Amino acid sequence: MNKVGIIMGSKSDLPIMQQAIDILKGFDIEIEIDIVSAHRTPEKLFDYGKHAHTKGFAVIIAGAGGAAHLPGMIASLSPLPVIGVPIKSSNSIDGWDSILSILQMPGGVPVATVALNGAKNAGILAAQIIGANDTCVLDKILVYKEGLKQMVKDSAKDLQ
Amino acid sequence: MNKVGIIMGSKSDLPIMQQAIDILKGFDIEIEIDIVSAHRTPEKLFDYGKHAHTKGFAVIIAGAGGAAHLPGMIASLSPLPVIGVPIKSSNSIDGWDSILSILQMPGGVPVATVALNGAKNAGILAAQIIGANDTCVLDKILVYKEGLKQMVKDSAKDLQ
Amino acid sequence: MNKVGIIMGSKSDLPIMQQAIDILKGFDIEIEIDIVSAHRTPEKLFDYGKHAHTKGFAVIIAGAGGAAHLPGMIASLSPLPVIGVPIKSSNSIDGWDSILSILQMPGGVPVATVALNGAKNAGILAAQIIGANDTCVLDKILVYKEGLKQMVKDSAKDLQ
Amino acid sequence: MNKVGIIMGSKSDLPIMQQAIDILKGFDIEIEIDIVSAHRTPEKLFDYGKHAHTKGFAVIIAGAGGAAHLPGMIASLSPLPVIGVPIKSSNSIDGWDSILSILQMPGGVPVATVALNGAKNAGILAAQIIGANDTCVLDKILVYKEGLKQMVKDSAKDLQ
Amino acid sequence: MNKVGIIMGSKSDLPIMQQAIDILKGFDIEIEIDIVSAHRTPEKLFDYGKHAHTKGFAVIIAGAGGAAHLPGMIASLSPLPVIGVPIKSSNSIDGWDSILSILQMPGGVPVATVALNGAKNAGILAAQIIGANDTCVLDKILVYKEGLKQMVKDSAKDLQ
Amino acid sequence: MNKVGIIMGSKSDLPIMQQAIDILKGFDIEIEIDIVSAHRTPEKLFDYGKHAHTKGFAVIIAGAGGAAHLPGMIASLSPLPVIGVPIKSSNSIDGWDSILSILQMPGGVPVATVALNGAKNAGILAAQIIGANDTCVLDKILVYKEGLKQMVKDSAKDLQ
Amino acid sequence: MNKVGIIMGSKSDLPIMQQAIDILKGFDIEIEIDIVSAHRTPEKLFDYGKHAHTKGFAVIIAGAGGAAHLPGMIASLSPLPVIGVPIKSSNSIDGWDSILSILQMPGGVPVATVALNGAKNAGILAAQIIGANDTCVLDKILVYKEGLKQMVKDSAKDLQ
Amino acid sequence: MNKVGIIMGSKSDLPIMQQAIDILKGFDIEIEIDIVSAHRTPEKLFDYGKHAHTKGFAVIIAGAGGAAHLPGMIASLSPLPVIGVPIKSSNSIDGWDSILSILQMPGGVPVATVALNGAKNAGILAAQIIGANDTCVLDKILVYKEGLKQMVKDSAKDLQ
Repeated sequence: MNKVGIIMGSKSDLPIMQQAIDILKGFDIEIEIDIVSAHRTPEKLFDYGKHAHTKGFAVIIAGAGGAAHLPGMIASLSPLPVIGVPIKSSNSIDGWDSILSILQMPGGVPVATVALNGAKNAGILAAQIIGANDTCVLDKILVYKEGLKQMVKDSAKDLQ
Repeated sequence: MNKVGIIMGSKSDLPIMQQAIDILKGFDIEIEIDIVSAHRTPEKLFDYGKHAHTKGFAVIIAGAGGAAHLPGMIASLSPLPVIGVPIKSSNSIDGWDSILSILQMPGGVPVATVALNGAKNAGILAAQIIGANDTCVLDKILVYKEGLKQMVKDSAKDLQ
Repeated sequence: MNKVGIIMGSKSDLPIMQQAIDILKGFDIEIEIDIVSAHRTPEKLFDYGKHAHTKGFAVIIAGAGGAAHLPGMIASLSPLPVIGVPIKSSNSIDGWDSILSILQMPGGVPVATVALNGAKNAGILAAQIIGANDTCVLDKILVYKEGLKQMVKDSAKDLQ
Repeated sequence: MNKVGIIMGSKSDLPIMQQAIDILKGFDIEIEIDIVSAHRTPEKLFDYGKHAHTKGFAVIIAGAGGAAHLPGMIASLSPLPVIGVPIKSSNSIDGWDSILSILQMPGGVPVATVALNGAKNAGILAAQIIGANDTCVLDKILVYKEGLKQMVKDSAKDLQ
Repeated sequence: MNKVGIIMGSKSDLPIMQQAIDILKGFDIEIEIDIVSAHRTPEKLFDYGKHAHTKGFAVIIAGAGGAAHLPGMIASLSPLPVIGVPIKSSNSIDGWDSILSILQMPGGVPVATVALNGAKNAGILAAQIIGANDTCVLDKILVYKEGLKQMVKDSAKDLQ
Repeated sequence: MNKVGIIMGSKSDLPIMQQAIDILKGFDIEIEIDIVSAHRTPEKLFDYGKHAHTKGFAVIIAGAGGAAHLPGMIASLSPLPVIGVPIKSSNSIDGWDSILSILQMPGGVPVATVALNGAKNAGILAAQIIGANDTCVLDKILVYKEGLKQMVKDSAKDLQ
Repeated sequence: MNKVGIIMGSKSDLPIMQQAIDILKGFDIEIEIDIVSAHRTPEKLFDYGKHAHTKGFAVIIAGAGGAAHLPGMIASLSPLPVIGVPIKSSNSIDGWDSILSILQMPGGVPVATVALNGAKNAGILAAQIIGANDTCVLDKILVYKEGLKQMVKDSAKDLQ
Repeated sequence: MNKVGIIMGSKSDLPIMQQAIDILKGFDIEIEIDIVSAHRTPEKLFDYGKHAHTKGFAVIIAGAGGAAHLPGMIASLSPLPVIGVPIKSSNSIDGWDSILSILQMPGGVPVATVALNGAKNAGILAAQIIGANDTCVLDKILVYKEGLKQMVKDSAKDLQ
């Protein structure tokens, strides 16, 4: 059980969600990508949410914009940890609608929300969740964090 | 097909939603009340939304707070007009989360949103929707509006 | 009584309101379009609101930006259901003014508010309101919703 | 033409609007008070707005809460300067709806907006408008401002 | 006493403030324009505010952006009615800072605030204030309002 | 590696954070509680963050209010998944500061943010993260979700 | 030059500003307290601002609520560092007006803004500014910070 | 002890922070620039904050965007006055996240916050802090303020 499901409400969310795909590929973590719309394909949503935990997924990453119901509805249907990515889509009010629709879940049904358009961090968080029980992945995260550090040091050198 | 379904995400929403019940009773419009939680009873949500239009409902009023997914998910599942009541519940950020989660639906799936805690107006709007094809109900709305007028006139007299 | 009135505060609102026109034409629902400004043509506003229900309209869609008073004033004057479309015009503060001016109507006078710039959804909601008593229109909505579903499925296939 | 009309959308606005009444009485400026609801008494609104400038009013002060349309509709109907008082009523979202509905008027139809619940300042502003052509009133305003100064000086002395 | 003073915090505010200039010229009302910065020329601010009412001004229009202190400080210093124009300058947070800094004046010192970038309405409001005691100007405002009406009617005809 | 660390910025956060403690005890998951202040005990913060993954923790839950830096700094220091709980403390601006300080982490360093005061959901999310590799915990979550469902059904029965 | 001037717009701000007084007394730093209202005592404001740097002050702390112009006007008039304390007064919109009026100063005239109602931090910041050239005060700040640390450690012990 | 440390979370913050550099160079105040990321180089952050006061710094200016923890963490670690510059970076929500993360520090640990992108004012404030004990720098600030005044006067002349 170490696959990550990445779903989004619309194909137009792909440029943002690609960041999660790239991060997880970089960590050699298996992913499965799909488009699932809470508002236009409720049956697919239902099916996806009810069965995700029996199909080898460890975590679901769900991205959506506007009145973003996809992450919360998957969290309603699945016992797996769900990471929500608020997306600043064209019909969004500066992203506030996406953020609040995903973040403010009622007691009992959490969604692990990341920053607006923060699909990259969703990918890292999914890896950290898998790494919580897989020291090989944990080690990769430690290496990744060293890489972040080095990049800052290099740019500090450039500055001098 | 002239019954109004009134649903809410939690029993704690009843004091607000009661305003819609009272208004519709005042208009002699048949109602059915239920608790349906998008996040805790997704199967009931699904069943309710898929079959409402075959059970004599003309309109659904759905009230919810926080990351309020109930109105939007019913609108996803049902071809009927859905009226959403954003509720300022204890876990809400001044009601902004409820409003934006209900209002900012994507193109294709509308929710007729009323004011924060505006269940009274949800009841009137449901009556107006039925009245759009029922002159008897339309007449009652005209009478209701005369009543509003009279109340203002009376309080203006009191003021003088 | 099955005509939809579509009004807007200014001709500059037409590109947004056109989405409602297109949707309703697609559903073969009769429409009448006009420009009515609450702030510049109050007499026309008054006349329109007072008589709409005697002229064969079932629903009014009103779009406006900034301190948007058009939907609420029509709702004040008419017993018909009024759908309000908040428009993010050039003089708007990110649309917040339009949304709150339309949504936050006092008890007694509802406006069915849709998303910012959500004229498409206003058109669908008007059709659903007519469909609440017209099974022929209801069936068209069911077909429309199937179309939405298919579009998501097709884009999901493209993604794979 | 030196009377000030003070109107409010509901009797519940009186405790706030009383501050304007008291200020203007203090300046010996004639006032007339009424309740006019844009949403419940549109005919009275219309009548009031159309004729105010022929009845000896120099300025209109209009207070309202929520989706506050009263000040803007009076400004639409009357050539007189209209002062709008946003009121934080019980159905308001922290007053933001009242403020934006009154402040964000379209080009051509201004409302002189004062602070949330700022009826006192609405009264002073009305006096200043009259004072712009009445040196006797202008002198009273100069005296009033001296009074403000003295109060601060006294409390500064208390502090020492 | 029928001149209007138009001041702004910076020359970069001129493109917005020009709308007030144009409107007042159209009404044949005498104006005087200046740049007065509350934060960079406090002495000039002080001098301007203290003496405006002795120099033939009836109204002051003050435009400023960001933490906009110019309108409020003139209102502090002068007994004249002060109209504040919040400007969405480059260093502003979507205009919220300008609006709140001008609108939320304490009791005793009003500023007549117009919409964000609403210099045109500031000009009209200044004319209305002068018109409150000058029937010739009042008549011009009635004509101006007829012009607004005609423009909407023309664009409604175009639409048909 | 299946212990959950629960830390908070101040003892005054305990009433909120207790909800996470109770949930995790209910799932028989081992916890360790501590007070770590990013702003008052930076050395302890540093030590805690650097070593948490070597001390048997699988997940860290960090709650803080105002300019809440604790969750983000732990996420900076530790490779483990960090769950952030924004707390609406007395010095917070309606919770917006806590939410944005925790949610809007830069690319590379995620914090899994839950709703304002949502410590209960933080506890459930921590259990889900452990459950992602522990079918025994996963089963408990499925049972917990059944319990939520039953509670809604019972309250729906009460309503009838 | 090592005295701190503490001013506030109204005596009602004293309970908040007392925190700055207490902190600075604790550091044995000389203070002078006064009430100066930008809007009611502009002459006193002017005099205070113009001469503060010649009277032995090293820093000015200015607290104000609503459209808070006091800190910014002192910063306009004085070359000294000015610390602004936004106060959530009764006429404030949740403090947003106070914060933005103080924080968003134009380029050239800074105000060192602290948190809403953060007079305690204003006091500490004033001490730090003096400590920047007075090692005796710097040492006291180091001791103060140790005290904060100890308080957290003690409450952590209590928790265990 | 009269050097100013200027740090930023990322090289992409340099165009904004350059304004602080230019101002301080103009005042002939010694500066040291570095990139220190709270989230990617926590060890460097720690080292910088713990030792700044022993290395000749009088003030630290720290700029950061999004969930900006750099200024607050330096303030946690150092007894020196810390000036925070909220930066509207690409991943920021209109700058609100940066502002609130820097401004809303808890009691005990102040950050002197300037306007969004207000690095220029951060530079001036740093000079003012040094000038609080250095009359030579104070004089330069008086000259600088005269320059601001002259610029406004010149642009006022241009306008006439």
